[in-house]
Amino acid sequence: MESELNFTKMQTPDGTKDYLPEEAKKKKYLEREIDSIFARWGYEEVITPAIEFFAALSIGTGSELQQKMYKLFDRKGHILALRPEMTAPIARLVANRLKEAPRPLRLSYQANVFKYEAPQAGRQREFYQAGIELIGAKEQLADAEIAAIAVEVLQQVGLKNFSLDIGQIDYFIGLMEEADLTTEMKKKIRSKLNQKDFVGLERLVKETDLTARQRKALLTLPDLRGGREIIDRARELVDNQQSKSALDNLEKIYKNLELLGVADCINLDLNIIRGFNYYTGMVFEGYTQDLGFTICGGGRYDNLLEQFGAASPATGFAVGIDRLLIALENQGVELPIEEERIFLLYEEDKKEAAINLAKDLRADDKKVALEIIDRDLASSIDYASKSDWSRLVYLGSKELIKDRDYELDTLCGQEVIRLK
Amino acid sequence: MESELNFTKMQTPDGTKDYLPEEAKKKKYLEREIDSIFARWGYEEVITPAIEFFAALSIGTGSELQQKMYKLFDRKGHILALRPEMTAPIARLVANRLKEAPRPLRLSYQANVFKYEAPQAGRQREFYQAGIELIGAKEQLADAEIAAIAVEVLQQVGLKNFSLDIGQIDYFIGLMEEADLTTEMKKKIRSKLNQKDFVGLERLVKETDLTARQRKALLTLPDLRGGREIIDRARELVDNQQSKSALDNLEKIYKNLELLGVADCINLDLNIIRGFNYYTGMVFEGYTQDLGFTICGGGRYDNLLEQFGAASPATGFAVGIDRLLIALENQGVELPIEEERIFLLYEEDKKEAAINLAKDLRADDKKVALEIIDRDLASSIDYASKSDWSRLVYLGSKELIKDRDYELDTLCGQEVIRLK
Repeated sequence: MESELNFTKMQTPDGTKDYLPEEAKKKKYLEREIDSIFARWGYEEVITPAIEFFAALSIGTGSELQQKMYKLFDRKGHILALRPEMTAPIARLVANRLKEAPRPLRLSYQANVFKYEAPQAGRQREFYQAGIELIGAKEQLADAEIAAIAVEVLQQVGLKNFSLDIGQIDYFIGLMEEADLTTEMKKKIRSKLNQKDFVGLERLVKETDLTARQRKALLTLPDLRGGREIIDRARELVDNQQSKSALDNLEKIYKNLELLGVADCINLDLNIIRGFNYYTGMVFEGYTQDLGFTICGGGRYDNLLEQFGAASPATGFAVGIDRLLIALENQGVELPIEEERIFLLYEEDKKEAAINLAKDLRADDKKVALEIIDRDLASSIDYASKSDWSRLVYLGSKELIKDRDYELDTLCGQEVIRLK
Repeated sequence: MESELNFTKMQTPDGTKDYLPEEAKKKKYLEREIDSIFARWGYEEVITPAIEFFAALSIGTGSELQQKMYKLFDRKGHILALRPEMTAPIARLVANRLKEAPRPLRLSYQANVFKYEAPQAGRQREFYQAGIELIGAKEQLADAEIAAIAVEVLQQVGLKNFSLDIGQIDYFIGLMEEADLTTEMKKKIRSKLNQKDFVGLERLVKETDLTARQRKALLTLPDLRGGREIIDRARELVDNQQSKSALDNLEKIYKNLELLGVADCINLDLNIIRGFNYYTGMVFEGYTQDLGFTICGGGRYDNLLEQFGAASPATGFAVGIDRLLIALENQGVELPIEEERIFLLYEEDKKEAAINLAKDLRADDKKVALEIIDRDLASSIDYASKSDWSRLVYLGSKELIKDRDYELDTLCGQEVIRLK
């Protein structure tokens, strides 16, 4: 019991973590870069609560996600939960507060979200997302804009060797409808595809009484990944309007992606299914070989807002900040978080001068701290050398440092000694 | 049941709220300004999880706060809770990850925190805090630095008519020890003082067998608010070492505040008690008459880290972002959140040119969105005028807008039409 208590006193819960200064700076750098990109594309940030009614968070999310939510109760007996993602909360916000606002709405967010999962690197129980939602436009340029912004985010932060794989969920859904399968079987097939378990898929398909062409269409799904040419290949495999319309839609999205100048970073992939139930059209996921998880994902969800009483087409995506940090780390990408931080030592009778110099430096937007512990000069210098200060400045008599390596320097018009 | 479900689908839980774009911009502005101030004073941000073990969050916080925590369980039966404040989590982080790091540590945070309270304006159940902790220094300059940064935060964001009231909890504790009261009575007296219920205090004091001087010392507490002179007044009221040392300490802190140039914004107030049990020395609270709650608060907590196995003196403070927003709003202070946001309309055959112009504008750090809905020009213009765009630009034939008020303009070398 003693050690159990000690454990829960000292550790963070499984799947949650502390960010020490260096890692926190990297996270902040990414979030600010991404926020700037969203703002430059005309998106405006909104903020929703971390705790919501379970009923609101459950809409459109499917039972798997519902089971992974952290639930709690308020004192009136309502079931609350920690938000597991941001699309449903933003749909709720739009339906509640922006129902009459002119369309389209371009909204962005940065949020901590929570899922009770088996923790492993890149799969935290509390994790951080940045994302956008474009609400009120059914046009293909809207989908292309979302995908182009996702590409810009990954490019801008310096991620290498990534690909954005874009599919169209209606192609698969049309195929399922055409095949006249049981709901149970559709669910199983979807799950196999989502897990990319193609052996399992083949075994499943054998249990069905599909036509040879339908069978081929399903089993060919994993191969339908590449450039624009896969659209024509896919067209020959289906004989239903929904799948064909999905391909026409995807072709138009692709043309817009060419206009937006990002087609080079894109693969079409009709095998992209996504975990959330709410997707209705384009779906996409961003990958790099240097991480075993998707880094970003999104798509069109034209039916979700209707469930909140504010029917509207919509499309959007989110990027996982923690995953992006790990992928960049794995690729050895250095983020520009270095900064000058000045540590200021002083003789006691120079205290006032030191305080005033620090004030002047801060007014000049410099980062500076004063020695604050009453200790000898050697101890102060030892502290500074072991901590995260990039520059050590001394205001005092040269006599006391004559055995050390130093040079004279001037800061804000004040002569100082710079220690090395 | 239907309406109950509808309610929990559409609303946020009591005491939580959505921030729409304008309010979110104000919040972000404050958070970034405050983050810059903390950085200029040499503080580095750390991030801790929103959910922690209840055992860790309970250390030093007292039973009242423990009862206000949102609790939940993980699937191993551990009790978790949403963090109600950030000092205990940072103490845990320091004990766990930075135990051997050289002192002092200057750490900052920005976090959402949670308390189950009766919701009212300025008292949310989920709210946002920014704060700092200065760990490892017992010196008065450390306390003065914390208070000076609090003053700079309130000044910098434009808050008017505020005061930072600084007390020293040991003055009161020494008085209680000297008086030899029961623990129960001490608790009651502390509670009355904390609630500023001076009538109740007087009634309580009558129940005790205090000496006339001790009685006077306690009942005079509410009057001991003002400049440096109250220290001398207070000295005459007590006859115990702890209270006298507290006054000596406060006097030295005040001298440092004068050196730091912030004494003008400070009142000394020996009546400041604070709700948290962990405070041990200087305590302070920031007020303005334009808000019925403290806006910021903090103090010294030299015993908290020991309870996490990493004994160290420490001092810090936090400011409530939501409360600061309300106070600034009440004072009519305008935050500089205005920005140019360009909405770009185009004739269909200028689509590619419009996409390229938008790209050029974004490369120039401008905020710009394209019309994305397939509709006639009049509808587009109507949308733009009702939304949050500051500039409406048209790429197309003058013929189509000849009845409108416009002028020619040039953006990134491209001739455009600026609509009014």
